[in-house]
Amino acid sequence: MSTAEKTFSKGLEGVVAAQTEMSFINGTEGILEYVGIAIGDLASQSSFEETVFLLWNKRLPTASELEAFTKDLRSHYTLCDEMITQIKSCPKDAEPMHVIRSMISMLAMYDTDPNANSVEAARQKSMRILAVTPAIVAVFDRYRRGLEIVPADPSLSFAANFLYMLNGEKPTEAMTRAFDICMITHADHGLNNSTFAARVVISTLSDVYSAITAAVGSLRGPLHGGANEGVMKMLNQIPTVDDAEAFVMNMIKNKERIMGFGHRVYKAKDPRASELMTLAKQLAEDTGNMDFYNKSNAIEKVMEREYAAKGIYPNVDFYSATTYHCIGLKLDLFTPMFVLARIAGWSGHVIEQLEDNRLFRPTTDYVGPHDVAYVSIDNR
Amino acid sequence: MSTAEKTFSKGLEGVVAAQTEMSFINGTEGILEYVGIAIGDLASQSSFEETVFLLWNKRLPTASELEAFTKDLRSHYTLCDEMITQIKSCPKDAEPMHVIRSMISMLAMYDTDPNANSVEAARQKSMRILAVTPAIVAVFDRYRRGLEIVPADPSLSFAANFLYMLNGEKPTEAMTRAFDICMITHADHGLNNSTFAARVVISTLSDVYSAITAAVGSLRGPLHGGANEGVMKMLNQIPTVDDAEAFVMNMIKNKERIMGFGHRVYKAKDPRASELMTLAKQLAEDTGNMDFYNKSNAIEKVMEREYAAKGIYPNVDFYSATTYHCIGLKLDLFTPMFVLARIAGWSGHVIEQLEDNRLFRPTTDYVGPHDVAYVSIDNR
Repeated sequence: MSTAEKTFSKGLEGVVAAQTEMSFINGTEGILEYVGIAIGDLASQSSFEETVFLLWNKRLPTASELEAFTKDLRSHYTLCDEMITQIKSCPKDAEPMHVIRSMISMLAMYDTDPNANSVEAARQKSMRILAVTPAIVAVFDRYRRGLEIVPADPSLSFAANFLYMLNGEKPTEAMTRAFDICMITHADHGLNNSTFAARVVISTLSDVYSAITAAVGSLRGPLHGGANEGVMKMLNQIPTVDDAEAFVMNMIKNKERIMGFGHRVYKAKDPRASELMTLAKQLAEDTGNMDFYNKSNAIEKVMEREYAAKGIYPNVDFYSATTYHCIGLKLDLFTPMFVLARIAGWSGHVIEQLEDNRLFRPTTDYVGPHDVAYVSIDNR
Repeated sequence: MSTAEKTFSKGLEGVVAAQTEMSFINGTEGILEYVGIAIGDLASQSSFEETVFLLWNKRLPTASELEAFTKDLRSHYTLCDEMITQIKSCPKDAEPMHVIRSMISMLAMYDTDPNANSVEAARQKSMRILAVTPAIVAVFDRYRRGLEIVPADPSLSFAANFLYMLNGEKPTEAMTRAFDICMITHADHGLNNSTFAARVVISTLSDVYSAITAAVGSLRGPLHGGANEGVMKMLNQIPTVDDAEAFVMNMIKNKERIMGFGHRVYKAKDPRASELMTLAKQLAEDTGNMDFYNKSNAIEKVMEREYAAKGIYPNVDFYSATTYHCIGLKLDLFTPMFVLARIAGWSGHVIEQLEDNRLFRPTTDYVGPHDVAYVSIDNR
């Protein structure tokens, strides 16, 4: 832009922008912890509900606390009739992410006190948004498919209730567990772009709806939440497992970006990817999708051979693509699944920001001219 | 939060987060320039349309360029019927900022290619959003007041068309000019929070609608765009001009924040405020609102006596409150006026970001525990 550039870190890479007690990432060693607990332990032993409690309260709940938390969450599963009407007024061919962003924004209008942003109010609004967003996704998807709306079932877990509202039948144990693990592993991840956007917006002491709406808009970008859609598109382009190696080598030759590999943060293996790899394999077996799994696996082997020395490994998007495909989700619902999970992290960060707020107001490096005279239009 | 804090700049104060060729701010000397031209020159000699061209193209237009730009803008004044239906489905008691955020988000659904984000596509979408948002505000306001919708008039300027759609009658020359100057002075202002939010969101290569929606959500916060509402509320609490001094001194004594004074950036007079002060006085005379103007003036005198040595001066919000009141706007339409103007700046920054993008992905200072064991729920 100019020759007189100030030094600054583009994209704020390496710049500390907030304190958090939620997730800790060590990219070099491939570690992800939520409040100090390894993501692998949570994925294998915890539930999404418990994980959300952990992130919002900075400790695991007792049995009675978890029961109360779950009861509160389930009491907000159901969308009001006005919101169902709003969803049904969206064009059927709209991208679900545009619908979700707009509908979360509209939730504010059906809250009698949308702007309350004490920490306690923010927790309540977060609970409501977290609980009801699965219904937004399911209602829109069934509406566009011309199917009856399936009411929420408050006897079901977050994961099971969503799959039930979406598909109209109770999910199998394996699917529920698989989906729950996807939710756990995607719940929080430091100051990723959408989380940062949420913190930036709430720092004007705006409202939780504004902050989460901003985050949804960020997440839909292909450099963020849109990445697992890219993985799926690539997998769909590869005819058989045997074609995978040649396909990837050709992409490398043409310097095309291989979706689902490498991460700004992780230079070692993405610790969330290994959980999902195990899960994806089991689900693929259960649902007769081993061809997809094997294609993923073949791509990973080529990439490992070519790039592991440079620290390029499969990231969380790589295996979540296969997982969501096996669960029966259409491609344009992949990023919305990321929304369902990450609302937990976004909300937690909004709460942390409100607890110790300072308005985000960075500066620019101005690289334009100075002292320019206003020349009247006849003299230009 | 923890004793082992890293040093970081809270709120990213003083941290350079982007390069820009649009606005230059020197807070110490009270200078604001758009592409090098002093804001005072633009306010007194330019139009909002020309100012937007300047911000988006980094130079003033020729006569034929301005004509083409204006024609393009006016061709997008009218809301599609589907959007009018959407606006009329909002609860009448919704805060306009929640409506505007939701409706700009929904515009994406009525764009056949909402996600296109080449620089050229971003310009076209920015033009559409800028041109049509006045209609969103006017349609919602007339709908909630139970009045007929007034269609846009493409023979009118941006400012005149908005006032016409809102009030149902052609505005006077003075009102149009006053409103136009408000639009010019609020069009851009460096990396203020909402502009920063827009750049953060577009940096995932999301879409212009997502970015502007995020910015609207940020702007509604009381630490940002909500401030001129606070000024108005304070003015309403002061019975007469003679009560102003005692009222303000009492607030100072009680350590209450006096809305409309001081600015994170300006330590000298806010250069936008002086333009508005002149304007507010003339409008107040024209519209029989000298009591309001005199109250503002009395507050400024007390504040100057008490605080000018500390660099606390009236900011742009202080006199825009009186101005908007004289134009006949209801209190909850004050921040929406800021939206109408600032879409110019938000869009310009979105375009700059797309021209040289790098994903915003700062880091956190993690201040929680490490290596925490997952204890099963029975053992907690």
